[in-house]
Amino acid sequence: MIGDDDTGLYRSTFQEIPQGDEIMKAGVLGSGMVGQAISARLAGLGHYVMIGTRDPNKLGEWRASHKDVKIGSFAETGGHGEIIFNATNGAGSLEALKLAGESNLNGKVLVDISEPLDLSNGMPPSLFVNNTDSLGEQIQRTFPKVKVVKALNTVNANVMVYPQRLANGDHNVFISGNDAQAKETVADILKSFGWLHILDLGDITTARATEMYIAIWLRLWGALGTAMFNVKIMK
Amino acid sequence: MIGDDDTGLYRSTFQEIPQGDEIMKAGVLGSGMVGQAISARLAGLGHYVMIGTRDPNKLGEWRASHKDVKIGSFAETGGHGEIIFNATNGAGSLEALKLAGESNLNGKVLVDISEPLDLSNGMPPSLFVNNTDSLGEQIQRTFPKVKVVKALNTVNANVMVYPQRLANGDHNVFISGNDAQAKETVADILKSFGWLHILDLGDITTARATEMYIAIWLRLWGALGTAMFNVKIMK
Repeated sequence: MIGDDDTGLYRSTFQEIPQGDEIMKAGVLGSGMVGQAISARLAGLGHYVMIGTRDPNKLGEWRASHKDVKIGSFAETGGHGEIIFNATNGAGSLEALKLAGESNLNGKVLVDISEPLDLSNGMPPSLFVNNTDSLGEQIQRTFPKVKVVKALNTVNANVMVYPQRLANGDHNVFISGNDAQAKETVADILKSFGWLHILDLGDITTARATEMYIAIWLRLWGALGTAMFNVKIMK
Repeated sequence: MIGDDDTGLYRSTFQEIPQGDEIMKAGVLGSGMVGQAISARLAGLGHYVMIGTRDPNKLGEWRASHKDVKIGSFAETGGHGEIIFNATNGAGSLEALKLAGESNLNGKVLVDISEPLDLSNGMPPSLFVNNTDSLGEQIQRTFPKVKVVKALNTVNANVMVYPQRLANGDHNVFISGNDAQAKETVADILKSFGWLHILDLGDITTARATEMYIAIWLRLWGALGTAMFNVKIMK
């Protein structure tokens, strides 16, 4: 599914750059499914995107169909972005962010999409941090001058960037962070992706909640037989 | 809200005993909000209900308006019920079930509604077991001959027993357990409560998922300002 944003299928309705939205330089750390999806979507929206990877070869085929996305090291990507997306594996996130460079990141908004998945206990994965702490908080503590906003970590990569492809967008995404303005910035980006229902859960400690939600997400994935689902809050 | 089932408001549509449903002797362990709600609802549906408590005085006022519910000790309630509901505080559940009596419980379906809440770290509560284990599994391991079905632990007491009062019942409840027939029995009871969308997540290990979900439930409660909400799975 990743990469089919190039079909132009939704471009006329969802890929327009909304009036007044600012074109940004975005740095996306991580070149797996999530990093690729976020990078392609941001580039499709007109932003200047660099995807950061340790292994540019990994992006061989994808690169050919996404020439509007630059490829760089983590440090180059940290320097490029006015806003940074952490799409690295949770277990390697702190290290990846250190490679991106604290001085590169300081003062910037960091959209943290990572999951603290621990694969050592078999499937489904457990979490290497949870309950009274979270990976989002660990990142915020390690980089106190970065404006960490946890978001998008409760859905699969395709739903993240094309929420309207699922139930016409009638479902929820959550954001957590300490900086109100940073959360507004992230909410604007989510709206530009097509998100209709964005729920601010509170400060970065609420990342525990969305990270622990992965436990039921994984079981729902198993029970439903598809990753193309999400929850809608009914009240 | 607890107790307003006596108004008869929904009785004509939802409190009818569905054709073919069996009248059961039900034992409800725990006399807090959840135990009261489950007991009153089951009694309203025509079942023979005993509520088990350590402190009958706690039920003073409630008792006066729910004379169709017997009150007993945990042991008496374990003996009374053909099906047992664990509505005790998670921290005291194993002890309460031991008081109910393993020989009383063996071979029976136990609907486990408890949450492993740890209040020692302040608010919101954390969980005293999670991630690679769950309270549902602890109960199943401690009582291997009991058919434990985790259910209803993802919504507040009023939504549990009157799901139709929220969004016309258009939202989900989850069940977890090792015994397929026990899960069918529980699903039938949930349907008699008004549940339309019952999702079987799998064996009792999936109780980890619904117990960990309490983390986001608590944050949603805070963000939404009401406990009258639930999630609907959109796919």
